[in-house]
Amino acid sequence: MKRELDHLARFLQAAVDWKKKIRFNGTLLIEPKPQEPTKHQYDWDAATTLSFLQKYGLSGEFKLNIECNHATLSGHSCHHELETARINGLLGNIDANTGDPQIGWDTDQFLTDIGEATLIMLSVIRNGRTCTRRFNFDAKLRRESTDVTDMFIAHISGMDTLARGLRNAAKLIEDGTLDELIRKRYESFDSEIGSQIEKGKADFATLEKKAMEWGEPSVASGKQELAEMIFQSAL
Amino acid sequence: MKRELDHLARFLQAAVDWKKKIRFNGTLLIEPKPQEPTKHQYDWDAATTLSFLQKYGLSGEFKLNIECNHATLSGHSCHHELETARINGLLGNIDANTGDPQIGWDTDQFLTDIGEATLIMLSVIRNGRTCTRRFNFDAKLRRESTDVTDMFIAHISGMDTLARGLRNAAKLIEDGTLDELIRKRYESFDSEIGSQIEKGKADFATLEKKAMEWGEPSVASGKQELAEMIFQSAL
Amino acid sequence: MKRELDHLARFLQAAVDWKKKIRFNGTLLIEPKPQEPTKHQYDWDAATTLSFLQKYGLSGEFKLNIECNHATLSGHSCHHELETARINGLLGNIDANTGDPQIGWDTDQFLTDIGEATLIMLSVIRNGRTCTRRFNFDAKLRRESTDVTDMFIAHISGMDTLARGLRNAAKLIEDGTLDELIRKRYESFDSEIGSQIEKGKADFATLEKKAMEWGEPSVASGKQELAEMIFQSAL
Amino acid sequence: MKRELDHLARFLQAAVDWKKKIRFNGTLLIEPKPQEPTKHQYDWDAATTLSFLQKYGLSGEFKLNIECNHATLSGHSCHHELETARINGLLGNIDANTGDPQIGWDTDQFLTDIGEATLIMLSVIRNGRTCTRRFNFDAKLRRESTDVTDMFIAHISGMDTLARGLRNAAKLIEDGTLDELIRKRYESFDSEIGSQIEKGKADFATLEKKAMEWGEPSVASGKQELAEMIFQSAL
Repeated sequence: MKRELDHLARFLQAAVDWKKKIRFNGTLLIEPKPQEPTKHQYDWDAATTLSFLQKYGLSGEFKLNIECNHATLSGHSCHHELETARINGLLGNIDANTGDPQIGWDTDQFLTDIGEATLIMLSVIRNGRTCTRRFNFDAKLRRESTDVTDMFIAHISGMDTLARGLRNAAKLIEDGTLDELIRKRYESFDSEIGSQIEKGKADFATLEKKAMEWGEPSVASGKQELAEMIFQSAL
Repeated sequence: MKRELDHLARFLQAAVDWKKKIRFNGTLLIEPKPQEPTKHQYDWDAATTLSFLQKYGLSGEFKLNIECNHATLSGHSCHHELETARINGLLGNIDANTGDPQIGWDTDQFLTDIGEATLIMLSVIRNGRTCTRRFNFDAKLRRESTDVTDMFIAHISGMDTLARGLRNAAKLIEDGTLDELIRKRYESFDSEIGSQIEKGKADFATLEKKAMEWGEPSVASGKQELAEMIFQSAL
Repeated sequence: MKRELDHLARFLQAAVDWKKKIRFNGTLLIEPKPQEPTKHQYDWDAATTLSFLQKYGLSGEFKLNIECNHATLSGHSCHHELETARINGLLGNIDANTGDPQIGWDTDQFLTDIGEATLIMLSVIRNGRTCTRRFNFDAKLRRESTDVTDMFIAHISGMDTLARGLRNAAKLIEDGTLDELIRKRYESFDSEIGSQIEKGKADFATLEKKAMEWGEPSVASGKQELAEMIFQSAL
Repeated sequence: MKRELDHLARFLQAAVDWKKKIRFNGTLLIEPKPQEPTKHQYDWDAATTLSFLQKYGLSGEFKLNIECNHATLSGHSCHHELETARINGLLGNIDANTGDPQIGWDTDQFLTDIGEATLIMLSVIRNGRTCTRRFNFDAKLRRESTDVTDMFIAHISGMDTLARGLRNAAKLIEDGTLDELIRKRYESFDSEIGSQIEKGKADFATLEKKAMEWGEPSVASGKQELAEMIFQSAL
């Protein structure tokens, strides 16, 4: 297994070298994919691919192409994969394919779920203008979709879903209620001991002293039901 | 295993007898559930429960209480479970709980997915007025939902989602495009050889003769992309 | 969905009629399979297929061909599927293919797991001599298995695994410890109130009276760890 | 999500600092776990935990405690998780619990599968003497296991399974056939162009030249069926 990973890293390094030699300025993308065609894919998900890129000193050279269906197959939501890529500066492109959440292989359907499209667009907007971020559609259809019009309908439907998702995401960001909920959830880290923790200045001795002084903390609600209601209301 | 199933049937038969003895007119409900608390639940899903009820002569005495989270855990969609129950005259009640499609256990959240709620309501409307059909909410919350208001928000959000689902379902049925698509998909069974097949009058000899006469049939598109676009447009 | 199921039943009835007409004495087999090629297969697992056969009056005409890989994909163990078929008089044949327990599609490998083979053979032996029971191997290999010898090795290995499973199963049955454990687990149904329950003579009134008389029952251990140890020791 | 990961890193760094301050020489362990208690665990599996440790400069300070049940829940085999940890110098301890491969939550059973135990022991032996490597058993039992003897049986059975696994693993390593198969599978990387690739000296220009010179390569069989047969014969 170590040898296979080494070989893969050598291959990708050679691709990077070649890119530089021919002065190609495009972004090199890796599309994480679990379970297919081998069970133990070394690019299982965004985090696994990040661990590989970091280990072999390749993290500056590649970005990720996230596909929702692959996210599902790896046990994550698409949004989780997009955010994992985004916060590590790796979100390069999105493959606008989705799959059935319960079937364990790649069904390569186009997006029709407005909720999923809204979450995707939240990541896209937050990823900002300076990052490469495009969508691509795999031009495949289901076995039963034998009319040439099916191809058009699938693309129109997928594109419309993404457009509705973008509008909803913009609405949610402009409204700000969801962001405010998240800000409040973590605000204890904005001041006093919390900000000391974030700065790495609070060691266990300090924390123990504070814990003894303050006693048992009250457990604050995560307000997840409220967050879900706000999100759904925007759809 | 056979002995356990026999015991279960005896117990349910005794419950039916008792119900009659005390002149209780309510409907007895079984809630299919896979994986929990035992791996090989004998009420895994609607079809498994139907096979049990038929085998022990209990199908007239029980109806099913379908829960979306249990549907997911059994590998089906909620709509599939509802329709399996409905077309067998077994849809008695709906447990308005849902779960994460990728986590393998019962998370008991309330519904927030408008698409899922619309599919549920299509089954409810088609099940008609003469059938028992109610919704119940399990009054539980997530471990993190510690405010008393979380309970209210969860119920309001779940109820609103079902209300939006009902409106969407009514719109889809009134519009009729989706039903027309399904009617056309199966219309070859409305006349000639198709209707003979439905009446059980077309044996293999007749079918072979027709197949030789007509030659290779053209494969008609299932129009699934169109069906999904129509559905999503109603949300 | 109802119409599709009706059509399937008509087709299978026509096959039965044809079989009789041409005086074919072989057994007609249905191989339950979930998720492929359609998500909502009407022959999802043994219990689902039983519910279909019962509903359409076809249970006497078909037996099941159980495949371990399909069992896994439906969320069950192979042994559960075999026993479900066996206790309903439906175990007709076994497809000696297995799959990876965590990959969600049909990998069509041959059996190499001795434990799984032993459980299979326990069902085969218990199914008895009067029932049709054969094994078939799908003559496929993995994409990477490009040598002609791979085909031989796969069959030899699969056959050896089944042979070892048969020996282990015979040993477990001859030894009798496991059967005795099961007998003891259910012995309260062999006498007194338990045998009354099995005969359908104990109604709720009788049971309530006994429950009040005896008080809170002690919870007997299921001895599952012991059962697993006995089973593994035979491998 | 980024903020939560930062906090986790701060906390672990504080633990490392505290360990040094009190001159504690033990190994700090992280036990990767997916899906529970939150869906998007930041320590999902070995590779995810490695990506986290690398990003925050903590890889030298922590080793992993691999649990087979958690491996299964993350979509991997236990052996894959152990090897991922081992080849990255992170295999610190093994939690000798396993789970049902098809139930989606932590069942915390003790190991009874000889094949799984053999694979585990192959990783343990290869991890060598200089590494911390111990096993621990979580002292829990199933809900039904109410006898005090069940606790003893479970531990004896788990320990025996590991002992049989160790013997099998030693036999496989001493025999050498499996290792030889792997050596041959990758031997094209031992000489000429292959060893140049491993040394990072073969760029795309060199590889293209060789590819043109040699023409279409013959596809060598992966001999997976043979590998599985050798492995199973040792059990």
